[in-house]
Amino acid sequence: MPYAPRRAALRATLRDRELDALLVTNLLNVRYLTGFTGSNAALLVSAESDAETVFCTDGRYLTQAERQVPDLERVIDRPCDAALAQRASKAGLRRAGYESHHVTVDGLDVLTDAAEHVELVRAAGLVEELRLVKDETEIEALRMACAAADRALADLIAHGGLRPGRTEREIARELESRMLDHGAAAPSFETIVAAGANSAVPHHRPTDAVVHAGDFVKLDFGALVDGYHSDMTRTLVVGSAADWQRELYDLVAASQAAGRQALAPGTALSAVDAAARDVIEQAGYGEQFLHGLGHGVGLQIHEAPALSKAGAGTLLPGMAVTVEPGVYLAGKGGVRIEDTLVVRRGAPELLTLTTKELVVV
Amino acid sequence: MPYAPRRAALRATLRDRELDALLVTNLLNVRYLTGFTGSNAALLVSAESDAETVFCTDGRYLTQAERQVPDLERVIDRPCDAALAQRASKAGLRRAGYESHHVTVDGLDVLTDAAEHVELVRAAGLVEELRLVKDETEIEALRMACAAADRALADLIAHGGLRPGRTEREIARELESRMLDHGAAAPSFETIVAAGANSAVPHHRPTDAVVHAGDFVKLDFGALVDGYHSDMTRTLVVGSAADWQRELYDLVAASQAAGRQALAPGTALSAVDAAARDVIEQAGYGEQFLHGLGHGVGLQIHEAPALSKAGAGTLLPGMAVTVEPGVYLAGKGGVRIEDTLVVRRGAPELLTLTTKELVVV
Repeated sequence: MPYAPRRAALRATLRDRELDALLVTNLLNVRYLTGFTGSNAALLVSAESDAETVFCTDGRYLTQAERQVPDLERVIDRPCDAALAQRASKAGLRRAGYESHHVTVDGLDVLTDAAEHVELVRAAGLVEELRLVKDETEIEALRMACAAADRALADLIAHGGLRPGRTEREIARELESRMLDHGAAAPSFETIVAAGANSAVPHHRPTDAVVHAGDFVKLDFGALVDGYHSDMTRTLVVGSAADWQRELYDLVAASQAAGRQALAPGTALSAVDAAARDVIEQAGYGEQFLHGLGHGVGLQIHEAPALSKAGAGTLLPGMAVTVEPGVYLAGKGGVRIEDTLVVRRGAPELLTLTTKELVVV
Repeated sequence: MPYAPRRAALRATLRDRELDALLVTNLLNVRYLTGFTGSNAALLVSAESDAETVFCTDGRYLTQAERQVPDLERVIDRPCDAALAQRASKAGLRRAGYESHHVTVDGLDVLTDAAEHVELVRAAGLVEELRLVKDETEIEALRMACAAADRALADLIAHGGLRPGRTEREIARELESRMLDHGAAAPSFETIVAAGANSAVPHHRPTDAVVHAGDFVKLDFGALVDGYHSDMTRTLVVGSAADWQRELYDLVAASQAAGRQALAPGTALSAVDAAARDVIEQAGYGEQFLHGLGHGVGLQIHEAPALSKAGAGTLLPGMAVTVEPGVYLAGKGGVRIEDTLVVRRGAPELLTLTTKELVVV
């Protein structure tokens, strides 16, 4: 199980900051550190050891917590944040960190009352910092999530799911249903299906608009597996592709390849964005590339790092990111091509395996 | 459109509290006050008028905001909370409320920097207070959401969807798919299908467990329509019902009826819980009724008011609530029966119309 090593890594951070403990109230962070998947929990991670670390949830999750968090002391109480702040006080801790990017102003009052003589110290983003670099358990979940999306798209195409006359909404439902067939617990976000001119809207929601021969169809979708999100975009042509469509497609594909090639440990996040963006700018379409190049994926569909002009920092091995340039010609059509990849020493590992050649169905 | 009247009601609250404005950052509250359905927005509601009220979102939602929020000044900026705090400062406001139950400790720093000389005042739950009582636009959305769930269940039963040999997971997927057929944008929460002994677990997640003749099957599910959530539980028997099943069912049905009859304006929330709980306690099953009687529903699946022992306050006309007693016999089976209703002067309005007689399929 990967949870004890993750807590050990956090413990090292706590000692560096001279914190006796961290009160983790962000539920995704609790899941990351314990494997608990219920809807209410908190965790008091001791800087000393797991023996002094306490997990809290409510009565609905009694048996689930026994199963998922067998290795930590478990408290059944409500609200969990106050219960654990009280525990920190009873344990005689001096300084306890709390997630100030997650705890509300009113919530801090509750913690402060419960913590009594414990000094509560802002400690934002410590677990998110660890989550930046995925371990192999996480990468395996991402791999399965990406595979579910790949297979769903293959099924959709094989069964004529993109034929003229179908609506965007019908296609989205079929894609989502096929992801469930392939092991997804749910779609990882609201599926985008955009036909014809709608493909020029970056985050178009599926409507009753119908697919016509000659349309671009842009599909941006993903699967949720074991809490991890995949994210893939493919843009296909129905019937036969016009010259302008092939040219636009080739341009975005070249940009996407340049972005992927820039994915190496030590590269600045903004330089990855620039590598892909330069290709599109040199072709004169810079103004039609409306968003950043990509984002981290994991327990959230959008998480750090941001691959964008403003992205600060550099790539590390084990970061999982999307690379998704797009060019959008308003009223005409747009192309986006997106993969989910893992940064590795050497070449990145590609997790979304559907072809990026132009598919004409 | 109901949005201007809602803002007018909020404005009266602001004047009572001598606030020049409220900075609304809870996205559901922004939606309630404007109708905006995007994923990023904030609203600065002036105590003076809509003419001084400012809406903010980011560039992705430019055209959507023009369509959905035509009647307010719109700012396109990022982050929206800081942009509007700055606006409050430039407008020379003295005291502005912020949603201290929603703004994080770190987030307040950002607001404080941006607001400069404006005094930021805690103002938690002002919009939620308004949302307690639903207007007719909201009740119509709830009605449609409940109808989608009713119809999906009718279809499921009519098509033999509960026959022995099917898994909980298959049934859940069919129910969800049929809700989409009937106009739901999505399920309103994770569908519960619990067969046989699993029905004794209040919040069981669907598994590959198979339905057998003689099983209870507990279905707890709902639809999302126009942002509003329906919530209904029915417990059926497959094949033929044993005596203990009929007795247990009749007991829970009697409790549920007592709870519904207690839904009248002016009744204490705890008294509604007690009306239903008494029936179960008198039958000796008080310990097997593991949760509160019900909760408010609206833009959230669980919102105020809580119908429970600890519920403080009284019912008002226009509150939308669930009434959902249950008795759970561990290892054997359980029954829960749940409706969504609106409190009205006189008898409550029932929104979930599927029969509550014991259905044997």
